[in-house]
Amino acid sequence: MRRQLVVQLPVLADCHRQRIEAAAARQGFTVSFFEKEEAAAGAMAEAEILLSASPRLADRAPLLRWQCTPSAGVDQFASAQPFLSGRAALTNSSGAYGVTIAEHVIMVILEMLRRQPEYNSFISRQEWRQDLPIRSILGSRVTLLGTGDIGRQAALRLRGFLPQSLIGVNRSGKSPAGCFDRVVPAAQLDALLPETDILIISLPGTEEARHMLDARRLSLLPEGALIVNVGRGSVIDQQALEKELRAGRLLAALDVFEQEPIPAEDPLWRCPNLLITSHVAGNMTLPYTVERIVSLFLEDFENYCAGRPLARQVDLRIGY
Amino acid sequence: MRRQLVVQLPVLADCHRQRIEAAAARQGFTVSFFEKEEAAAGAMAEAEILLSASPRLADRAPLLRWQCTPSAGVDQFASAQPFLSGRAALTNSSGAYGVTIAEHVIMVILEMLRRQPEYNSFISRQEWRQDLPIRSILGSRVTLLGTGDIGRQAALRLRGFLPQSLIGVNRSGKSPAGCFDRVVPAAQLDALLPETDILIISLPGTEEARHMLDARRLSLLPEGALIVNVGRGSVIDQQALEKELRAGRLLAALDVFEQEPIPAEDPLWRCPNLLITSHVAGNMTLPYTVERIVSLFLEDFENYCAGRPLARQVDLRIGY
Repeated sequence: MRRQLVVQLPVLADCHRQRIEAAAARQGFTVSFFEKEEAAAGAMAEAEILLSASPRLADRAPLLRWQCTPSAGVDQFASAQPFLSGRAALTNSSGAYGVTIAEHVIMVILEMLRRQPEYNSFISRQEWRQDLPIRSILGSRVTLLGTGDIGRQAALRLRGFLPQSLIGVNRSGKSPAGCFDRVVPAAQLDALLPETDILIISLPGTEEARHMLDARRLSLLPEGALIVNVGRGSVIDQQALEKELRAGRLLAALDVFEQEPIPAEDPLWRCPNLLITSHVAGNMTLPYTVERIVSLFLEDFENYCAGRPLARQVDLRIGY
Repeated sequence: MRRQLVVQLPVLADCHRQRIEAAAARQGFTVSFFEKEEAAAGAMAEAEILLSASPRLADRAPLLRWQCTPSAGVDQFASAQPFLSGRAALTNSSGAYGVTIAEHVIMVILEMLRRQPEYNSFISRQEWRQDLPIRSILGSRVTLLGTGDIGRQAALRLRGFLPQSLIGVNRSGKSPAGCFDRVVPAAQLDALLPETDILIISLPGTEEARHMLDARRLSLLPEGALIVNVGRGSVIDQQALEKELRAGRLLAALDVFEQEPIPAEDPLWRCPNLLITSHVAGNMTLPYTVERIVSLFLEDFENYCAGRPLARQVDLRIGY
């Protein structure tokens, strides 16, 4: 019996399938492709490797040794036994989303500073308005909470807009690759918030990061500060933020929420000073992102077959 | 009688007034400030220098030697006799708008590539959609028609997004300051258009540039190309572009139009694949822009008082 690789992804193009098939053939694997999770379930009995975002398929795969999820976040795997028990390894696709999420971040920053949601609504009513005060990234103090691929790619692009400062915040305070003016440890966040005009959050949905931006920390931000969250909704106390937005003290562009989709009856839908996007910043509908997911998977596939450590293995106890 | 400087600008803050007053006092000038054109008219009899966007005040100022307009474009002065006759000099504020217009350009490029107008309209109906195919600046071939302050500032910021190419187009083909991969003369535009994914137009409203993008040239652009116009509406044959947009062959983000405001009955208001903004890209509601206008004016004020050539003098025969 040949070794089995199961790929369950809704977005693969022919060129991606061919790359995976060629790599699998070289290593003596047979590949089965599925678009939907339910369809893949039947192939789990013999799967040794799984490329899928589903946290449920592994339970039905007694031979599974490794699952790679095409997502960067792994919060949906928090209680997945096969990985908690160590029976199988879990890797993520951290590194596939930095480019597209950084583009989203800069788009929404500019939309909020330039009052684009309001100007758009004037245009939709055929009103020719030009009088709204706008702001610029130039001279702004930018704080990036999270210095992984997303924070770094955002910082690299923001540099050209000549902000006054680009300061990264992470656990250790260690600076990755020099994209930031400096990097400080999360313990110094309180001191940094009063000097932050734009706060970009790209933290994973860990227990440690839960409500890191609570009412007290939000109140430390100066009047008019803009919060962009492209990490996980749980990082912000959403109710406390909504109060600040309704008071007109802060602005926000949120791509992630405590509950997704936002419930139909949630007043957040009509909150002022808020730009809502439907968790699309890291959308796999960008071909480049799928290309990166496949490339990162194949890199670890070679590691796996050669008995080397997997490059993007996740530790579910810390959550990334 | 003291020499008279008249400033007619609706947007000055106290700090700007103080800077102008201090410079004027050092040179023996008295300054009068007006917000509206009509209010300034009465002070024209004795004005030697005028800082105003109005092309009409100079006619009423027999002593006028120099007018500085806070705009970059000077098409509104095309038939202004005091400057055509050489009785008074005209300078513009080219160099004040590059930063804010570049931010607008990058915002609308990202909005169009990432389908933000459509996603926004889903959100306004509380629909949680995530399935629209999106594109990236990464790997795109960008052509900048116009390599002045706006084109250069846009190129400097686009560099960080890792486009495949950033090619400038101007009259001479001479490259300013090295922001571009290369600069080609306008005579080569036809050869460049088929290899352009994003076309950024920042040309002034000159006779030479009128309908430079006509139906034939538009048809040279590849399917799906995006046109951003922040120069003057006259550069594009708007009817021809509208056809391409309605056919779904091109995308556009237009801040300038053949007629502004767009007439109420114009079907352009409801044209698909088009993001309309109401000539706000270079809006003076950004404090930094006003700061630059004042600084550039004061630079030429010192030149004027010292008898040196004015740095931003306009030649109305060529239109910039």
